[in-house]
Amino acid sequence: MTLEEKTAQLYGVWVGASAEGTEVAPHQHDMEAAVDLAALLPAGLGQLTRPFGTVPVDPALGALSLMRTQARIAAANRFGIPAIAHEECLAGFAAWGATAYPVPLSWGATFDPALIGEMAAAIGRDLRAVGVHQGLAPVLDVVRDARWGRVEETIGEDPYLVGTIATAYVRGLESAGIVATLKHFAGYSASRAGRNLAPVGMGARERADVILPPFEMAVRESGVRAVMHAYTDTDGIPSAADERLLTGLLRDTWGFGGTVVADYFGIAFLNTLHGVAGSDGEAAGLALAAGVDVELPTVKTFGAPLLDAVRDGRVPEKLVDRAVRRVLAQKAELGLLDADWSPVPAVLRDADTTAGPDAVRGTVDLDPAANRELAGRIAERAIVLLRNDGILPLAPGSHTVRRIALIGPTAEAPTAVLGCYSFPVHVGGQHPDMPLGIELPTLAEALRAEFPDVEIVVAPGTGVDDHATEGFAEAVALARGADVVVAALGDRAGLFGRGTSGEGCDAESLELPGAQGMLLDALLDAGTPVVTVLLAGRPYALGRAADESAAVVQSFFPGEAGTAALAAVLSGRTAPSGRLPVSVPRRAGAQPSTYLAARLGHAGEVSNIDPTPAFGFGHGLTYTTFAWSDLTVEDTEAATDGAFALALTVANTGERAGTEVVQLYLHDPVASVVQPVQRLIAYARVDGLEPGESRRIRVTVPADLASFTGREGTRIVEPGELELRFGASSTRPLLTTRVTLTGPVRELDHRRRLHASVEVD
Amino acid sequence: MTLEEKTAQLYGVWVGASAEGTEVAPHQHDMEAAVDLAALLPAGLGQLTRPFGTVPVDPALGALSLMRTQARIAAANRFGIPAIAHEECLAGFAAWGATAYPVPLSWGATFDPALIGEMAAAIGRDLRAVGVHQGLAPVLDVVRDARWGRVEETIGEDPYLVGTIATAYVRGLESAGIVATLKHFAGYSASRAGRNLAPVGMGARERADVILPPFEMAVRESGVRAVMHAYTDTDGIPSAADERLLTGLLRDTWGFGGTVVADYFGIAFLNTLHGVAGSDGEAAGLALAAGVDVELPTVKTFGAPLLDAVRDGRVPEKLVDRAVRRVLAQKAELGLLDADWSPVPAVLRDADTTAGPDAVRGTVDLDPAANRELAGRIAERAIVLLRNDGILPLAPGSHTVRRIALIGPTAEAPTAVLGCYSFPVHVGGQHPDMPLGIELPTLAEALRAEFPDVEIVVAPGTGVDDHATEGFAEAVALARGADVVVAALGDRAGLFGRGTSGEGCDAESLELPGAQGMLLDALLDAGTPVVTVLLAGRPYALGRAADESAAVVQSFFPGEAGTAALAAVLSGRTAPSGRLPVSVPRRAGAQPSTYLAARLGHAGEVSNIDPTPAFGFGHGLTYTTFAWSDLTVEDTEAATDGAFALALTVANTGERAGTEVVQLYLHDPVASVVQPVQRLIAYARVDGLEPGESRRIRVTVPADLASFTGREGTRIVEPGELELRFGASSTRPLLTTRVTLTGPVRELDHRRRLHASVEVD
Repeated sequence: MTLEEKTAQLYGVWVGASAEGTEVAPHQHDMEAAVDLAALLPAGLGQLTRPFGTVPVDPALGALSLMRTQARIAAANRFGIPAIAHEECLAGFAAWGATAYPVPLSWGATFDPALIGEMAAAIGRDLRAVGVHQGLAPVLDVVRDARWGRVEETIGEDPYLVGTIATAYVRGLESAGIVATLKHFAGYSASRAGRNLAPVGMGARERADVILPPFEMAVRESGVRAVMHAYTDTDGIPSAADERLLTGLLRDTWGFGGTVVADYFGIAFLNTLHGVAGSDGEAAGLALAAGVDVELPTVKTFGAPLLDAVRDGRVPEKLVDRAVRRVLAQKAELGLLDADWSPVPAVLRDADTTAGPDAVRGTVDLDPAANRELAGRIAERAIVLLRNDGILPLAPGSHTVRRIALIGPTAEAPTAVLGCYSFPVHVGGQHPDMPLGIELPTLAEALRAEFPDVEIVVAPGTGVDDHATEGFAEAVALARGADVVVAALGDRAGLFGRGTSGEGCDAESLELPGAQGMLLDALLDAGTPVVTVLLAGRPYALGRAADESAAVVQSFFPGEAGTAALAAVLSGRTAPSGRLPVSVPRRAGAQPSTYLAARLGHAGEVSNIDPTPAFGFGHGLTYTTFAWSDLTVEDTEAATDGAFALALTVANTGERAGTEVVQLYLHDPVASVVQPVQRLIAYARVDGLEPGESRRIRVTVPADLASFTGREGTRIVEPGELELRFGASSTRPLLTTRVTLTGPVRELDHRRRLHASVEVD
Repeated sequence: MTLEEKTAQLYGVWVGASAEGTEVAPHQHDMEAAVDLAALLPAGLGQLTRPFGTVPVDPALGALSLMRTQARIAAANRFGIPAIAHEECLAGFAAWGATAYPVPLSWGATFDPALIGEMAAAIGRDLRAVGVHQGLAPVLDVVRDARWGRVEETIGEDPYLVGTIATAYVRGLESAGIVATLKHFAGYSASRAGRNLAPVGMGARERADVILPPFEMAVRESGVRAVMHAYTDTDGIPSAADERLLTGLLRDTWGFGGTVVADYFGIAFLNTLHGVAGSDGEAAGLALAAGVDVELPTVKTFGAPLLDAVRDGRVPEKLVDRAVRRVLAQKAELGLLDADWSPVPAVLRDADTTAGPDAVRGTVDLDPAANRELAGRIAERAIVLLRNDGILPLAPGSHTVRRIALIGPTAEAPTAVLGCYSFPVHVGGQHPDMPLGIELPTLAEALRAEFPDVEIVVAPGTGVDDHATEGFAEAVALARGADVVVAALGDRAGLFGRGTSGEGCDAESLELPGAQGMLLDALLDAGTPVVTVLLAGRPYALGRAADESAAVVQSFFPGEAGTAALAAVLSGRTAPSGRLPVSVPRRAGAQPSTYLAARLGHAGEVSNIDPTPAFGFGHGLTYTTFAWSDLTVEDTEAATDGAFALALTVANTGERAGTEVVQLYLHDPVASVVQPVQRLIAYARVDGLEPGESRRIRVTVPADLASFTGREGTRIVEPGELELRFGASSTRPLLTTRVTLTGPVRELDHRRRLHASVEVD
């Protein structure tokens, strides 16, 4: 291959599928100059960026458009190599008409990796069917500051929860033949003050012990084939130029063998935003040397600037060769280099693709009933009941509820269930008249369907973030006249300042947006019991409502079937079973603050500010009660490279079926470096316990889960006593025991497994 | 010496002087168990902690009490060794009746190291005269989050400003024979979310480039003899157990030869709060091994726990020996081991110390007129005029000002000028009826004295932090009836939650405390021009007032002569000349945010949140105008281990005398690691420029000032182009040029000087 042919495999072009099924057109993104596809193609093309992601296109015609373009790409280069087509699939395929699943914070809330794996497999099948090869998910960033707008894209604030759920997601996506992409590697979530893309100041140990473990687990246990670098710099080193991270740790230590792709425009940022490169060519060289193989979304630094730099000798050609080998190996693995490769995707295999668009239009359904059912199942399992004075469930007979006042700005907003990466928000947010493409019943519609005999009166009260208070009087009047108020509050997802949550929609504090906090206070003052229901992308401080609501129901953008799931929880048709993947703070200020903190990061020993949350990580109620008992420890001692086994019994002592989430927290009383007070090291979702039923849960914990980064910078396991706390949440330990690790201090063996084994009888 | 005798030299006892001049009594601090002085003394005693700091005692009687105790200590041990008596002296000697100088943020605002050195020399003389040997100041923490309560104790948010001012302070204090103590080494100011003592997450590079440089400058250029470790852990390593910091860097690299003392109770915290030690003995061993020599304030871990640990062989006795040698060397240097050592302090040399207390009572004045004049001079130079639409000065004749409405909670609060370490706040805050000990005219009194012909009407409007709004109506009525409103807002300093600023008085956000922001809005709405005057311990977001006040005058707890200085600035008797040592934010949330940030830490490229401050670091107006011109560069190239020289002319183009502060900022366009957009590398306060007068300012900058911590963790100077920005503030560059560094990348030579040379013709 010539140098041009090699570099051509290392970049993508951002395109939009044609709504008529003709070839894709380069996408005129405001951050890029126009790209001349015809001029590029003879050298080949590494990637096609987001063919379904920029215009509302019938999926079958999108597939047709992509197919034609792939045929053209393959035909235009000497080797007949097509591009890898990649798409966003954060909470479902980000295409028009595709299923909008709950956002990742909701995945975290399920504590149910198998279910998330099932979802990812379904997403993967839909991607694969229309000709996509790679999905830019999951996000493994561990929440460090809930003000960050992208918190909705994360799985939570605990690395073990993030790692286990993300690993399940990757396995699901990869099971469909889709290249999953871990992102953002690494540190993005710790941007200063939660301001998107601001510098990350964290130390090497915090990064190694909090940010990196989910990536390590996914790389080593899921077979993931791509990793995306983070935009940010950490302590002065941009991830895109961090060889120790992208090569030393990722490949040499963890054994990753896939491709590292750029976050969009991230290589050029080395020059324009980070100032560690003086030109685009220098940026390209730094990124290649660090271990970035593919520039996304479009050709910028890996085009002429890289060619010039290689020809001038400023960038060694062997760096290009290394990246090309990885890209071509992946294309070979995907079958793209096979002699019998065909551009025709599964959905068009039986179609007459030479006829006009009408021959295929409408033949592909990216939101079939099975997807919708799955989305609903996840939503139900993700809803977290934070507080309940007994008012819930509002089941017929259990209360005299004849009239519900549904008040709040998310009551009648169809897209209030979606995060910023769902198509209707991502693209639709810029085209208010665009048809949604999927059914999105509002909370009002869902309540009417759930409670056909109850009068539902509705008022917004205020906007999501417009600070308007004129609607308060009407809202309070409706509240006074009702038997119960459902306060429907939360976020409007958006991009770059167009929402209250989402990429580039950061918060100054964790107060509810706009006048919603004042509205909630006004509703509480009205005297009617208030059930606070949140459709949000991040946790918010609820002020008085944390204590004075009759009930609080937290959902994190629960997706297209989310309002029905909420209604089912309110009525009691479903028992709530989600657990908080992030703390819900008591104070709106004094951020950042997550549960994963050393003792001095908790209740202020010598500060007037007590950061104790209103509802802690792992918290969640249901409609029955449980008794935990019979904790046994198989081994009270274990070698520092061994394992120990624990077991306990959980019984449903209430009167209806329910789900308990058994959580195991590690407390290391004395260690050579400061440790968090506790951290999650195992969990088991115990579903469908009938009244009187009990289950025995056995947990085997490798001593490696007690590892941390020692003074010398390597991860070690130290001998000594550990406290193991089984709890229903991080703030409610129920059964506690101690185990002693014995033997020498050991360095972590990066080949051993990184998770606990859990068996539920 | 026996082991007991050696360890006895390594701890202190917290005492309070007797108001009757008899011996000191152990202080029953709530964090310590009672100490039996009589039992301890035969082994000797290293330190006496805060003899003047706990009770309001006549200074001469305090000196007598200390003298008698020293005599007893020396007599009780075999070697006749007295203790080192140490005191707090943050903003003046923290003794009853001693001068309360402006707090360190005000020192930073002066940009006048010589003046601060003069103050420190005065403080040192007062300490020395009454028998104190060591002062626990200055604070070299660089502000990283203005919510932190101890921001008032810092010099500002730029390491160069902090380093130069602190170095001058140390020289002043040491010139009087007092051991200065650099604190808190290192990282305390970056406590998470500004919560006092919360963990510090910063990376090694940020610490090396932002936190440590002031300490290095002071250690190498001031002759400082003590350093105090910080409470916090940084990235998991508590400073008190950080051998690389306390020994490797401080002693081996920087050449420090003095003692390292514990922050109060900090060694025990290794066990009780940090969890890196399992017992007090283990904590003592860790601290000794790291390089902590002296336990303060009182014996806890260095007593029986350390003795037992040495006897058991868990702690090597040679670590005790090392510390004892350092302590005894310092005592020798102080003359405490001299054969003719006398416990009689200078102030009692001619007194009959054997007579009753009345023989000496009242003979010592710790707040003489010269001190007060100096305190006033500093206050005047520290007041920062942030905004002025022309209303100031309120000079007779220039406006028709017949009635001033002075509104706000700091208008009539005598202690509103003091920080939390001044005696009337530190101790008086717990005893509201205690006489202040010094004259503290209120702002109302100062304005009446400054404007004898103007009617001054006064109302508090609200409390500092009580959220009360009942006083708004009266305040607005007074405002409407006046020609100008002076809104007197700010903080009440205190300790551990008793104030809005001070140790343990952290803020959730940078909104003005309580209802003060609402009061200010109500005053703005009243229609009378508002001059906003802040007596505060930290910068606050002013909301509308940043743009709608007729003028904004910022002072940071300006000390006992501060209200007179403020009045003089308002009247025009003094032209304001302070410059902001910390940014004044526009947004109350979205913290932390200081000016010292890389590009991505500034205006949100991809965040909706723009952290641009209302008034940037270095900003400050005066009553005249200046022209800057004739920038010349002597050398447009310099070696990476060389220096370059620049010069410019500043002329007073207005109609009255004034002071300009020339600031030189370095912008490094391309570097191997991400750099702040700019940082201060030189400054010159040009005082007393008469109308029409001009001065030539020459600055010689060692290339070392362009150093930063490279990828390998050492501080390096890289070749390449640098942009040099001379500005009147960080947000107002006026003359810019470029210099190219040539030659190889060089490691910083830690023996070369660390500051620029400035000459003003």
